[in-house]
This record gives sequence, C-alpha cells and structure tokens, in this order.
Amino acid sequence: MTEAVGQNLARKRLAWIAGVGASAGLGAALARRFAREGLGVAVTGRSRDRLDAVVDEIRAAGGAAFTAPGDVTSESDLTAIARQLAGTGTLEAAIFNAAGATRAATLELSAEQFEAAWRVTTLGGFLFARAALPALLATGRGSLLFTGATASLRGRPPFAAFASAKAGLRSLTQSLAREFGPRNIHVAHVVVDGGIDGERLRTSSPQRVAERGPDGLLNPDEIADAYWHLHQQGRSAWSQEIDLRPFNESF
Amino acid sequence: MTEAVGQNLARKRLAWIAGVGASAGLGAALARRFAREGLGVAVTGRSRDRLDAVVDEIRAAGGAAFTAPGDVTSESDLTAIARQLAGTGTLEAAIFNAAGATRAATLELSAEQFEAAWRVTTLGGFLFARAALPALLATGRGSLLFTGATASLRGRPPFAAFASAKAGLRSLTQSLAREFGPRNIHVAHVVVDGGIDGERLRTSSPQRVAERGPDGLLNPDEIADAYWHLHQQGRSAWSQEIDLRPFNESF
Amino acid sequence: MTEAVGQNLARKRLAWIAGVGASAGLGAALARRFAREGLGVAVTGRSRDRLDAVVDEIRAAGGAAFTAPGDVTSESDLTAIARQLAGTGTLEAAIFNAAGATRAATLELSAEQFEAAWRVTTLGGFLFARAALPALLATGRGSLLFTGATASLRGRPPFAAFASAKAGLRSLTQSLAREFGPRNIHVAHVVVDGGIDGERLRTSSPQRVAERGPDGLLNPDEIADAYWHLHQQGRSAWSQEIDLRPFNESF
Amino acid sequence: MTEAVGQNLARKRLAWIAGVGASAGLGAALARRFAREGLGVAVTGRSRDRLDAVVDEIRAAGGAAFTAPGDVTSESDLTAIARQLAGTGTLEAAIFNAAGATRAATLELSAEQFEAAWRVTTLGGFLFARAALPALLATGRGSLLFTGATASLRGRPPFAAFASAKAGLRSLTQSLAREFGPRNIHVAHVVVDGGIDGERLRTSSPQRVAERGPDGLLNPDEIADAYWHLHQQGRSAWSQEIDLRPFNESF
Repeated sequence: MTEAVGQNLARKRLAWIAGVGASAGLGAALARRFAREGLGVAVTGRSRDRLDAVVDEIRAAGGAAFTAPGDVTSESDLTAIARQLAGTGTLEAAIFNAAGATRAATLELSAEQFEAAWRVTTLGGFLFARAALPALLATGRGSLLFTGATASLRGRPPFAAFASAKAGLRSLTQSLAREFGPRNIHVAHVVVDGGIDGERLRTSSPQRVAERGPDGLLNPDEIADAYWHLHQQGRSAWSQEIDLRPFNESF
Repeated sequence: MTEAVGQNLARKRLAWIAGVGASAGLGAALARRFAREGLGVAVTGRSRDRLDAVVDEIRAAGGAAFTAPGDVTSESDLTAIARQLAGTGTLEAAIFNAAGATRAATLELSAEQFEAAWRVTTLGGFLFARAALPALLATGRGSLLFTGATASLRGRPPFAAFASAKAGLRSLTQSLAREFGPRNIHVAHVVVDGGIDGERLRTSSPQRVAERGPDGLLNPDEIADAYWHLHQQGRSAWSQEIDLRPFNESF
Repeated sequence: MTEAVGQNLARKRLAWIAGVGASAGLGAALARRFAREGLGVAVTGRSRDRLDAVVDEIRAAGGAAFTAPGDVTSESDLTAIARQLAGTGTLEAAIFNAAGATRAATLELSAEQFEAAWRVTTLGGFLFARAALPALLATGRGSLLFTGATASLRGRPPFAAFASAKAGLRSLTQSLAREFGPRNIHVAHVVVDGGIDGERLRTSSPQRVAERGPDGLLNPDEIADAYWHLHQQGRSAWSQEIDLRPFNESF
Repeated sequence: MTEAVGQNLARKRLAWIAGVGASAGLGAALARRFAREGLGVAVTGRSRDRLDAVVDEIRAAGGAAFTAPGDVTSESDLTAIARQLAGTGTLEAAIFNAAGATRAATLELSAEQFEAAWRVTTLGGFLFARAALPALLATGRGSLLFTGATASLRGRPPFAAFASAKAGLRSLTQSLAREFGPRNIHVAHVVVDGGIDGERLRTSSPQRVAERGPDGLLNPDEIADAYWHLHQQGRSAWSQEIDLRPFNESF
C-alpha cells in the first residue's frame, strides 16, 4: 500500500479480504462485491500478481482497492497489514477466505501435510481474527466473516486433514461470535456446500463443471451476495452460520 | 379476497404469508417487507380483524395486500386459498410462520396439548407446503420459507411439546429442500434464536423487553430482511438454514 | 397378564418394551436381552399372536415374560398396562421401539399418512413416556430408552413423514432427559443408522440383505446389547444419544 | 518396556492408552479397565513416574501393564512405541486420551498457545492413529477410541483454542471411521460432557467437586466402562459417537 493510496483512502470505510487469488475465485468476487458497495478493499494473498490483477479490475470498475500481500500463516504479515489499515481508514469488514486443501488416504498423509492444512486454514483464521479484531473494535462495529465448506461439518476421506482443519476453524468462529458479538462485532461462518464455479474447478475438472449444468456450481458472485447480506444484517438479527449450495446439489 | 381485488392483482407476483397476527409481530413484518418489494401479499391467520389491520397498513403505505383468512391446520382452508392465489397471479414466495407453543412439565402435559402443538406447527407446515407447492411449481421458481426457533434444534423442558413439533417441522423443510430444490423451489428454514420484539413479549414480559436493552430482542423488520434476502438468493447459492439472534444473545 | 403370572412376578424387577412384533425384529431381541438379565419383560404390540410367540420363546429359554397387548397411540391402553406393571413389580426399564414408516413423494403424501406416521412414532413415544414415568419414578431409578433412525437426524424424500416424526421423537427424548435425568431416570435415544437384519428387510428386500454381506445389516441382538449397556451405565456417566451402524455402512 | 516384560507378553492381546497421567485420572482408569479384562496394557504419557504408578497398581491387581513413555506430539515417539507393541503382541485397542487445554480471552491468546492446544489434541490424535492403525490392521480387527469433550461440539470463550482443537479431533475421528470401519477397525469418539471426578478437578476446584454432590461429576471408572463397551460392540452395530454426562448435569 503506497503512501499516496493511503492518503486517498484516509478515513475511508475499509474491508479486508484474506485468501484472494485468481480473479475467477471467491476471494476476488468478495473484493469486487464490497468495493461495489463503496468500501475500500484491501486484498491479501500470496501472489502479488494475482492481487494486482484483482485490484486493477476493481479500480477499472470505479472502486477503491489496494494490495496487501502476505501469508495468513504469518502473524507478522497480518499484524503489519492490520496496522496499515488502522492508519488508513476504519475497518468495517474482515473476511477470511484462505484454506489449505489436501487429498490423501490417512496412512499416506504425512504429519507435515496434516499440519500444513491446519496452518493455513485454522491457525490462519485465528491469526487473521487476532489481527483484524482490534481494528474492528476501534471502529465500534463491523463484520468478521469466515468461509467454510461441506468438510467443516463432517470428516470424510480422503479429506481428513482438510476437514479437521475446517472443523477447527468453524469452532473458532463460534467462540469468536460468543465473545465479540456483545462487543458489536458480527462473526459469521459460511458453509459453502458444493463446488465453486471458479478457476480451480474449471481448470482441474472441466468435465464436472460441464456436467453440473447451469447454476450447478456455486457462482462466486452469488456467494459474495450472501457475505454482503451478512455484513448488512441489523444487529438484532445476526446470523452466525449459513449454508450455501446449488439448487440441484445432492446433500 | 373480493373479486375486484382479484382483478387488480391479475397476473401479479404474489407472496403468501401464513401465521399473520398482530401488526407488531413477525408475520405482519414479513407481509410488509414483501409488499414493499412490489409483491401482492396474501395474509393468512385466524383473526380476520388482525389480518384486516395488516392489510390496511400495507395499502396505506402503497402496497398491495389482501386477507386470506384460514386455519393452517385445515387442509381445505389452505387449498381454497391456494386455488384463489393460483387464479389471481403467480405465486413467488410462500412463508409459513405459524406455531403453537405450550409450556408445561411433561407429566402435566396432556395428549391434547402435545397434539395441538404439533397440529399447528408441523402438520400446519406440511399442509401449507402441500397447498403452496403446486402454485410455486406452476410459476417455475419461488421460495418456500419456514420460521424455526431455538427449540427446533433442541428439546428442553418446559417446552417438550413445542420443541418436538418444531424439530418435526425442521426435518420436513430438509425433505422439501432435497425434493424441490432441483425443481427450482428454494426451501429454507430460519432458526429464530431469541425473543422477538413483538406484541407477544411486550405484553407478557415487558420487564424482559426492558432488560434486554436496544436490539437485545429480534426486531421483526430485521428478521424480515433475512427472509427477503433468502427469497432473492441466486439459485447457484441457496441457503437451506440460517440462524438469527441478537448480537448480545447468550447461546 | 393373568393373575397367576402377576403373582409370580410380584415385586419382580420389570422391563416394558413397546413396539414388539416379529420374533426376528428388534423389539423381540430387546425383550430376550432384558429377560436374559433376569428382568420380567412385558411386551407390547398390536399383534397378540406375535407377542405370544415372543413370550413363549423367552419362557422356553427360562426367562420371565408376559404379553401386554396394546396400541401405542392409545393413551388408555398404555396407562392400563402401566397400572398393571406398577401393581406387579418395580419397573426398571421402559423401551419405546414403535415407529410408523411411510414412503411417498411429498405431493402424493396425504395428510392422513403424515399424521399416522407422527401418531405412532412421536405421539406414541410421548404417551409411552407419560405412562412409564410414574412407575419409574416410583422405583426411584431406571431407564427410558427410545429407538431412533438415520431419519431422526435428517429429512430426506421419500421419507418426509417418517423423518419428521422421528425428529420430533428425538427432540422429545432430549426434553425428557433434561427433565428426568436429575430425578434419576436415564433417558436415551439410539440412532439406528442402517438396515436391521430382521424380518421386515428379509421379507421385503432379500437381495439387499444378501448384497450387504455378513454383519452388513444391524443384527437385532447386537443392537439389544447397546440398549442393555445403556441400562447398566452408572449415573455419573450416562449417554443421552448413541448411534449404531454396521462396520461397512456408508455414512 | 524391558525385554523380560516383552517376553511375558508375547502374542498377548494388547491395548495402548495414550494420555495417561494421574492414577485418579481417566487415562489410568482406562488402563485399569482394559487390564482387568485380560489385555496387556501399554500406557503412554509424559511423566514416567505417573506411568510407573499406574503400572504398579495394575500389576498389584493381577493385571499386565507396562510403561511406554512418550510425547503424543512426537511422531518418532509414537512410531517407536507402535513398533514395540507390534513385536510384542496383537494390538486390539488403541485409545487416545490426551488433550491440551488453555483458557484465555481470544485477544490474550498467543499464536503459540493456540498451536500448542492443537498440537497435543489434534495433531497428537492424528499421529497416534497413524502409529496405531498399521498394528490394528495387522491384527485384523480392533478399536481406535478418542476422548472428546463438551468443547468438541461447540466453541465458547475462554476455550477458543481448546474447542477448536477438539473439534478438529472429532472431525478426524469421523474421517477415520469412514475409512477404516470397512477394514474392520472400530473408530469411535466419546464426548465427555461434564467435569471428571479426577485429580485435576479435586485439586483445582475442590469446592465445585463438593457442590456437585454424589455422581455429579463423571467417575473415571464409569467412563471407562463405556469405552470397554465400545470395544466389545459387535461389528454389525458399532457406535461412532456417544456422549456421557452426569445424571444431574445441565446441558
């Protein structure tokens, strides 16, 4: 975040999205959605090129955005970004969308793989919350939203590591909701139950994408609508958890 | 529904809300919300006076509404209303908000009380779904939404009858979602977890209302926002269940 | 229950099992199991012939049993049986194993079918609890156990009626556990998740039975072991809900 | 494990319990219970003194036991123990009872504390399963049991770290059950919902112990009965999850 950008955003209402990658993914869709509503959006991810692309796209559409590259498993990265945000505007929304997936039979899953999934998914969520909460509390209100998955609700091979990490994240959001709801911070968990129609699936499983038919995979922009709705909910009626799935998903 | 009103509403987009009572309750708030969005709203409840008051209020605000008095435990009442609706416009949303609460120690709960709670809450939901679904399927899309409660998720004295009925209703919404989602009908269940700031509590427990503080009870209008959002969700990302509770609710 | 039998059982420790049908079913297995442990077992069901067969089998094996025919949807049947039991011995265990299954697409399910499933499954459970609890409370301890199913946990077509009723029963057991646990009555719910290797499946789906392989369906005697264990649990560590499924069941 | 002991146990049926500490705790009760049933019990924990005490107690009662000291967060410790066990007898039961609790407001919880709770509770469970499974698969049958807690099911401050770790462990047991059930290994998770009447509470909260009254805390021996029952279940009717709580626990 250059100084010039910082000045333009001074006292601006900000959203911080961590776990932003491809333009066709959920992180980018969330960034576009919150920018469209007038918030300045800080996008965090590991690939500066991808962040730049998302920021360019938002600016081209008239929105305000800036890159905040960093690794969600690094406490120092996150606290540095949070410090910058606090100096720049008032943080109103913080969204954690990072996850580390692995796929393996349990006996072939190494301790390192099991730990890596947790480090990105669960520890990352904790560090992100720790970094964002002081800024949200300073604002006096705001949303802290987390992306979950089918696996958040049940463990199933070959996703033992991913599911365990996602379950740990879900539990964390419950603790945070109970602790920070009364302090005016809306903590919610979104269970994305189905494949996302994003770059990942389009690249890895084009056949599956085709077979699902129109709207048979979750459209990132429609997922983002749900996050924006959560952000907008009046505090007398906050959701802590919602699920989202395609109309024709088997569940 | 008079003939004249029926003509005015011809081919109009319609919403049907069952379980409408006091103007300060949730049913009325749902009716106002969907009317504000331009739908013609049919309101069903047992008290014609209360329905008239809600309809007058909506019309005074420029919306379209009409009474459709009936008892949700009566299959003939509901199918008669559904037939009228089908002849009047295209049903786009149907909301079941009725419930029969009882409060008693189990050994003091009569079979009649246990049955009455089920009849309004669960059977009513089934009959309502049965009546509304043909019209929704004829429209080719639409929402079928149900009001749940904390008790939907767990049984606890002295609410054994109410909780059992609400759990039965929740299960029903899952079956309906799995059966009619692929047919383009969005079936969702809203867990209202906390006291509603409506006529009932303001009359029965004014002290509790006062103690909860601002936004400490669910505001019916803010609950209604969530229902409208569910109705608006794109079908690639539908929620089947959401919870709603005040920011400072203990849960 | 003849007078002679009643005298033989005087002050005997009793178990009452409702929902007893074929000798190859779960109800009969539960009766055999509790009889084997020395309790006098009263078996309730609608078919006197089947009850007689179960009682004969138990007596031939040296156990004590007697028929208590009745309909679980009839409050008077159940209270009459409970009165007899109270006069005969001390009731230590009461097990509700009845259920009314239906299978239909929702729009083809009549209100009568929906109600019938609830009447046997949920109302039956309530009436049974109401009838058994005074006797258990008079004993000063005991178990009140309920048979659940996969459908208890989620609704899914074409089992909308059955699932709704089973969910209502499950909720009821939670209310009962919370109300009567502190009064020394152990209320538990057993989620039988899979097909039971009993008369019903062997008759209706012999192919499915064959395909599942050894132990691929739940053996009623092994289910009954779990109920006996629940009955035996020390009260510092009671289970409220357990699941049971074959080792190779997909879930 | 000395060579002499190893010879005595040759081809013996073995149980392995990890998370064994004070004689008055759950780990020790589990060891005593499985030893009483004739299994040779290997006890794993970090304090050799405590392990020695448990082993001495078991031997004094005529059982077979030996220490297998190690740290559940160390893959090499666990695989070394598993290798010894495999060379000594046939492993029939493996129980993971370790957990790392912390108690802190989220903003005062360090990344190190959050990680430490996960490392003992979740990673430990994974490493233990990874170490025990080859031996259980070699035996051709057996149980792999895990201790859960109230926090396994919901996150709540000030237990955010503990709950997240326990939720991650619970999810893992589901993946393991689905993967290894069909291979004849019974994987189950025991939700201990309430305070355990063990050394920890008696030391830290003697008043709470007194106030709960007789059987108001979970007796470790009664918890152990449930684990033994799980181990004994016939494979046509295995439990994946059970809860345990005192009769008068509020839940």
